[in-house]
Amino acid sequence: MVSQHHPEWTADPSEVDGAAATFARLPRLPEVGRVGTAVLGVPLESGASRRPGARFGPAAVRAASRLLRADDPQPGVQPWPPQPAADAGDIAAPDAERVSAAAGQVLDRAERLIAIGGDHTIVSPLLRAMHQRHGPLALIHFDAHLDTWDTAMATRHTHGVPFRPAIEAGLLDRYCSAHVGSRGSRYDTPELSEDRELGYPTVSAEDIARDGVDRAIDRLRERVGALPIYLSIDIDVLDPAHAPGTASPEPGGLTTRELQLLLRGLGDLPIVGADIIEVSPAHDHAGLTALAAANTGYELLALFARIPR
Amino acid sequence: MVSQHHPEWTADPSEVDGAAATFARLPRLPEVGRVGTAVLGVPLESGASRRPGARFGPAAVRAASRLLRADDPQPGVQPWPPQPAADAGDIAAPDAERVSAAAGQVLDRAERLIAIGGDHTIVSPLLRAMHQRHGPLALIHFDAHLDTWDTAMATRHTHGVPFRPAIEAGLLDRYCSAHVGSRGSRYDTPELSEDRELGYPTVSAEDIARDGVDRAIDRLRERVGALPIYLSIDIDVLDPAHAPGTASPEPGGLTTRELQLLLRGLGDLPIVGADIIEVSPAHDHAGLTALAAANTGYELLALFARIPR
Amino acid sequence: MVSQHHPEWTADPSEVDGAAATFARLPRLPEVGRVGTAVLGVPLESGASRRPGARFGPAAVRAASRLLRADDPQPGVQPWPPQPAADAGDIAAPDAERVSAAAGQVLDRAERLIAIGGDHTIVSPLLRAMHQRHGPLALIHFDAHLDTWDTAMATRHTHGVPFRPAIEAGLLDRYCSAHVGSRGSRYDTPELSEDRELGYPTVSAEDIARDGVDRAIDRLRERVGALPIYLSIDIDVLDPAHAPGTASPEPGGLTTRELQLLLRGLGDLPIVGADIIEVSPAHDHAGLTALAAANTGYELLALFARIPR
Amino acid sequence: MVSQHHPEWTADPSEVDGAAATFARLPRLPEVGRVGTAVLGVPLESGASRRPGARFGPAAVRAASRLLRADDPQPGVQPWPPQPAADAGDIAAPDAERVSAAAGQVLDRAERLIAIGGDHTIVSPLLRAMHQRHGPLALIHFDAHLDTWDTAMATRHTHGVPFRPAIEAGLLDRYCSAHVGSRGSRYDTPELSEDRELGYPTVSAEDIARDGVDRAIDRLRERVGALPIYLSIDIDVLDPAHAPGTASPEPGGLTTRELQLLLRGLGDLPIVGADIIEVSPAHDHAGLTALAAANTGYELLALFARIPR
Amino acid sequence: MVSQHHPEWTADPSEVDGAAATFARLPRLPEVGRVGTAVLGVPLESGASRRPGARFGPAAVRAASRLLRADDPQPGVQPWPPQPAADAGDIAAPDAERVSAAAGQVLDRAERLIAIGGDHTIVSPLLRAMHQRHGPLALIHFDAHLDTWDTAMATRHTHGVPFRPAIEAGLLDRYCSAHVGSRGSRYDTPELSEDRELGYPTVSAEDIARDGVDRAIDRLRERVGALPIYLSIDIDVLDPAHAPGTASPEPGGLTTRELQLLLRGLGDLPIVGADIIEVSPAHDHAGLTALAAANTGYELLALFARIPR
Amino acid sequence: MVSQHHPEWTADPSEVDGAAATFARLPRLPEVGRVGTAVLGVPLESGASRRPGARFGPAAVRAASRLLRADDPQPGVQPWPPQPAADAGDIAAPDAERVSAAAGQVLDRAERLIAIGGDHTIVSPLLRAMHQRHGPLALIHFDAHLDTWDTAMATRHTHGVPFRPAIEAGLLDRYCSAHVGSRGSRYDTPELSEDRELGYPTVSAEDIARDGVDRAIDRLRERVGALPIYLSIDIDVLDPAHAPGTASPEPGGLTTRELQLLLRGLGDLPIVGADIIEVSPAHDHAGLTALAAANTGYELLALFARIPR
Repeated sequence: MVSQHHPEWTADPSEVDGAAATFARLPRLPEVGRVGTAVLGVPLESGASRRPGARFGPAAVRAASRLLRADDPQPGVQPWPPQPAADAGDIAAPDAERVSAAAGQVLDRAERLIAIGGDHTIVSPLLRAMHQRHGPLALIHFDAHLDTWDTAMATRHTHGVPFRPAIEAGLLDRYCSAHVGSRGSRYDTPELSEDRELGYPTVSAEDIARDGVDRAIDRLRERVGALPIYLSIDIDVLDPAHAPGTASPEPGGLTTRELQLLLRGLGDLPIVGADIIEVSPAHDHAGLTALAAANTGYELLALFARIPR
Repeated sequence: MVSQHHPEWTADPSEVDGAAATFARLPRLPEVGRVGTAVLGVPLESGASRRPGARFGPAAVRAASRLLRADDPQPGVQPWPPQPAADAGDIAAPDAERVSAAAGQVLDRAERLIAIGGDHTIVSPLLRAMHQRHGPLALIHFDAHLDTWDTAMATRHTHGVPFRPAIEAGLLDRYCSAHVGSRGSRYDTPELSEDRELGYPTVSAEDIARDGVDRAIDRLRERVGALPIYLSIDIDVLDPAHAPGTASPEPGGLTTRELQLLLRGLGDLPIVGADIIEVSPAHDHAGLTALAAANTGYELLALFARIPR
Repeated sequence: MVSQHHPEWTADPSEVDGAAATFARLPRLPEVGRVGTAVLGVPLESGASRRPGARFGPAAVRAASRLLRADDPQPGVQPWPPQPAADAGDIAAPDAERVSAAAGQVLDRAERLIAIGGDHTIVSPLLRAMHQRHGPLALIHFDAHLDTWDTAMATRHTHGVPFRPAIEAGLLDRYCSAHVGSRGSRYDTPELSEDRELGYPTVSAEDIARDGVDRAIDRLRERVGALPIYLSIDIDVLDPAHAPGTASPEPGGLTTRELQLLLRGLGDLPIVGADIIEVSPAHDHAGLTALAAANTGYELLALFARIPR
Repeated sequence: MVSQHHPEWTADPSEVDGAAATFARLPRLPEVGRVGTAVLGVPLESGASRRPGARFGPAAVRAASRLLRADDPQPGVQPWPPQPAADAGDIAAPDAERVSAAAGQVLDRAERLIAIGGDHTIVSPLLRAMHQRHGPLALIHFDAHLDTWDTAMATRHTHGVPFRPAIEAGLLDRYCSAHVGSRGSRYDTPELSEDRELGYPTVSAEDIARDGVDRAIDRLRERVGALPIYLSIDIDVLDPAHAPGTASPEPGGLTTRELQLLLRGLGDLPIVGADIIEVSPAHDHAGLTALAAANTGYELLALFARIPR
Repeated sequence: MVSQHHPEWTADPSEVDGAAATFARLPRLPEVGRVGTAVLGVPLESGASRRPGARFGPAAVRAASRLLRADDPQPGVQPWPPQPAADAGDIAAPDAERVSAAAGQVLDRAERLIAIGGDHTIVSPLLRAMHQRHGPLALIHFDAHLDTWDTAMATRHTHGVPFRPAIEAGLLDRYCSAHVGSRGSRYDTPELSEDRELGYPTVSAEDIARDGVDRAIDRLRERVGALPIYLSIDIDVLDPAHAPGTASPEPGGLTTRELQLLLRGLGDLPIVGADIIEVSPAHDHAGLTALAAANTGYELLALFARIPR
Repeated sequence: MVSQHHPEWTADPSEVDGAAATFARLPRLPEVGRVGTAVLGVPLESGASRRPGARFGPAAVRAASRLLRADDPQPGVQPWPPQPAADAGDIAAPDAERVSAAAGQVLDRAERLIAIGGDHTIVSPLLRAMHQRHGPLALIHFDAHLDTWDTAMATRHTHGVPFRPAIEAGLLDRYCSAHVGSRGSRYDTPELSEDRELGYPTVSAEDIARDGVDRAIDRLRERVGALPIYLSIDIDVLDPAHAPGTASPEPGGLTTRELQLLLRGLGDLPIVGADIIEVSPAHDHAGLTALAAANTGYELLALFARIPR
């Protein structure tokens, strides 16, 4: 049996394989059959980032997750084992097609998916696989930037409305989606006004600083309606002090504590999947970013454990 | 005379020893006789930590403390010289017995003690030495984690009630102690309920984020009553962005500013000793953690200078 | 034509020079004639700092500024091109005289100046050049420390009143200036009382934590009156978690988000110049400090774009 | 089937598990039955080292080994697949007893063992397991230091003859063993003379510098006779420039190229096992030490492939 | 006039632009007309490397080159000004076509070219531009690896004969080219035998260690004949201790001193161009790799200054 | 009694001061009276270096020296206690005058001096103090560069003959001095020819690579004659792979092993003093440079122990 505890306290001295290297020391998906949530590594990177290396994100996040433990401090929440969870490994040699295909295979055996990137190019194929299961999705998009999405969605440079391709393809419902944590300089103004024309709301980093986390949670909950929800979390939504190891660190971001509170505020919503992207280990001094991403994965597992069945 | 100023401005050109290497350039304890506060290095480490190296904490914290100066910006507070303070050096070849013995020797010559660890295994022997002087203590325990304490207290893995051994040994008064800053995943649920059964309150990191520092201070002041107080400060109570160089960094923690405000809020309470533990230099990029620990030592000196005599 | 976009997307394949290396990919001052704002590098360092290397600040900040883009997320604000801006390069072999002279030359061609240090010794000669254009100035001084200013102003150690030399020389108006973000231990008490005697207000880091950014902005706006304003921003006003690469990191500081909000709160005031100093790349893990400084320069450009003409 | 190639070139797009995380992407031992060589991680650390962290050695070395490929540039040498090899995982919760037991279990299924430490305390239990299979062994001991062995062998401080306990226990044949690469200051003189009394030869780092690698190989081959040979390779035999991430870096050491040539010179000798110890990732900038250790593991596999059957 | 000396000693105090940021503080190509040698940055990266980031190579190498000075210690060699040299800047938005085109444009104004990559994908288009000027070339290929070349030459995985596409395209003369410094594991054996079939010689790292630099020089000089020579220098030919910041560091490599001696041994040969590739700053602690690459550029300039006209 | 052993093994459990922080855990000079050799820290830095921070050299080198032990592996050599040695601390607030004065004071109590810098500006005042005791000196100057000496000697830029001021002042005997390890680009040619005119020989890094260490030793021994000898060791004589933490790292340098062998080859010569300079901790990844400097100090102590009395 695979122990989910810290290796120092494993009971069986004859055990010879402690190098599980799975997320949070969860069992591997092939060992456990059907699960509530599967964690899937997607080491895909477009190669166009400012600070490359996101393809090494899954390995770094898994290493940082080794000390995560099965009990959550929130009263009555236990991410696992009550909710069976497992690590589905990494997608080998990923490209957009394989990401969609592999996510689909994993979703055959898991109710929910947490994908660990990889860069922003993994989001579009993940949305396609999610849409196949659930139809149109509400998206909550945690990201410092709005305009990297163009390449994610269309591999073209469509300045202006990053979500339009996904919306036009029917993957996302424009009236139920939102950006969180945006800040920083942009390419040009139209994108913003087009976003507004779409009725697409943005809860900026400044909004959170001024109005608080609870007001942001209220705005997001009002927005998403009753649709199945997908969370895309670019780790650069955090401030560079909390997540230095990412392609495009942007000052003025969230603290890890704010992100935790935001996620906890989404409890009981019908979330069906999530990704955590843009962890780039080369610049990640002291492993802060990988640690923040691992902790975010834990918060997601805790969140999923609270969804009513 | 030992200068307490920065070496660049030392007046006497014939002085040949500038390598004092004491905390905040304080004099050494043997040079000054009896003092109000002594700083003691305890380079002890159990060897079981996730990111080892806490035995190098005292040297790193002393190096980071060289620019601390004698005047505090709070009106009317001057940590020294009005309050004589000195550095007692490091305990050589420490184990639990020697830590208790050396702390006792230092307390023969100092009213108060600030111990710089070392890891959490130094706390239990320090509590024993403190208890010998003062009887039962109130403990304010700044730490991200609750369950590392089992090894500190008993070198056994007593999941559940970390403070029970110290409470059962009569070192601590259960009704006057509290945890501050806890967060993150845990081994299992019972510990928490047992803590609650003991009436042991926890001011979590989320509590501080939601209710503010002043509410936390109020809760702590209500709790400690009139007993002599011991502060145990695991540097991981700070967020990893502020203290990356520690054994078990845990996202969602306090800022250094919040810790400063919390400590300043304890002014005029009968604090008799404190420790600052788990500074691990190997992962401490830019010396942030050692700097935070040195600054915490300074806040403690300022705090002690405000205690009415 | 010099592109202000990211090199990956430059349109003209025959272009052979992408190594512009100017701030925010702005054109060089000699190429554009008269501008609204010029950015000037001042790689001067007195050599007396705790963590030296500020002379490499301009190169590090320019490198970190490469991805800054021309559109600000604040509604209706566009830092450039509507406001012509350019990079004036670095002052070669700077000393105090050359800094004053070069700043004067740049001010012949630019309405406003953003100087990138260098250490605090560049402020006094910059104030002299500014004073030549504008007469007595109001100073808003963002800095963790009050007492490094003595050397900046007079190359003497005049403990007590750091601004006195500049005030006595008539460069600054004492009734219209203020410190922001101060904290930490000091050399001695008189300086503070003398500051108070001068009616010189300090908005400390603790004030901002307790009363909020908006209250600080109000106090600063009340203070500066109608004089031309100079902003001196020692990057150590930020917390070491946000700006580790600086000579004297001081725990308990501002977040980058707080600094952004403070600066945005000064919009429409008659600011005539600014400096960003004490970026020291050697300890700047992941380039956080250079990134924060580049972002601060961007906020200043956005601020200047909002000044009514 | 588990691919032994780089993930970028894996052929099967439906493959969902690329996170093998085994040494050199070898298959796991349970998947392949009996093998020629098994790689075993031994994350054991005594806690007494100067720069701790060797318990993280196996994970770091495996990560660095991912790009090792199956073909050796030496003519006619192919480390695998002709020689079946596999990764046996890590020993969970290791102590000396478990190390001996687990090594024995692995040797039931593998002709030869390559253990990846962990610190020097793993050597003694490995020798015991080896001795059970093969009787008295010849030891070639690559290490900068002679006197850390006392704790490895006896957990006592027997200054003088580090090998005496292992020799007296009959594990090693004193007339067939040798030290390689020693240098640096020592505790006291007797150890050396006692070594000489035992007829124990030392090929120092200076000997290799003066006389060349080939002369060192000749001396070692003469020494080991016909006994089964065990190689213990403390990575600090390398110069700190080549292996900075180790407990006790010692200037004046070997280059990786010299170590490669030394190992290649032992081809066709009856080597039955080896360890690579003291890789400590915290100080291992750019992963140099883990890379050197992974490459050393590869050289050992190539060496074993050349042993006549 | 652009000074080629260190900024600290620039004579003219009125000079306001010290931020030249060219290689070795050379003038920019547009400022000087026709030159003997032009340095061209090629920030192109395929995105498939193990440790990405080579696109930042040109900026890092230029920064490291700032202290290079105009006089070589070899008697009678002065790299410039007697040989006019200039920096041609970076190719903007490079792809293979633009690299060929831009290299051609530079060669219209410079007799020789030193390209600074970028990764190995820049070599093939550079060879095409070189071939247009000079016809078939002799190649001396400094590289730890033989099999990365397949992608460079053909963007296909033609295991076996990396040079075949370039040879078949007539760019290289197979009988006059050679590999230097190869070592490490490979994909499979055929490549080597095919190389041998082509008569393509390899001077391996082990050859240099065993036979010395002078023997290697002799072999290379015999090989290249009278053809115009192109040098391709993958910085990973150096040992990871000397060049940690590269995509695929490989233990057992050359020292910088050996590379210097090898290059100096090629003096007076008809070299027409060179590249220095695979400098990846993210892992380049202390800038060692960029420094080694800058120094290699200097050696090339010195070498070119010795070519008889 | 001050223990000279590792703190882990100190015998006396009641000992409370283990924070000696002296070089190699030697006693402090005031505690031991007259000694054979005193180690003196000189934290002086001119502020003009490329990578500043040499003022922190003494602290870094002492920290790296903690594990040096009293027995040398060379047969019959024991650096101490047979030769009493002590640490004289740091010079406070050093300038050139104080360096000369303090060195003189130390030489009143020590036969020989090992100064730990600090940058090259400490050499000239040290030579003056040495000359006062011993008259004209032979200098062996280990340094990558020849032309930094101008500022050391005269604070003027006298390109050409760096030693001329010291020679003209009669401090050095020009016919008995030599440079070792020089390499790299220079400002201009005259310096070298003037050096030659003075009969001043240079054993370059290339000479050592080509002719070996023993030939270099022979040349140096021939040169120095019977004069008292001073060794000035700029740590940049080592290759950047071995000493990255220095102001001006220069590729192509010596290994630590070569420097050790060179120094050992000077045994029994009448050396009266030495300095080790230019250790700059900020860029010193893994402490390699401080470790190399500490080891060099140890080699000097061993060397001094072999000088016949």
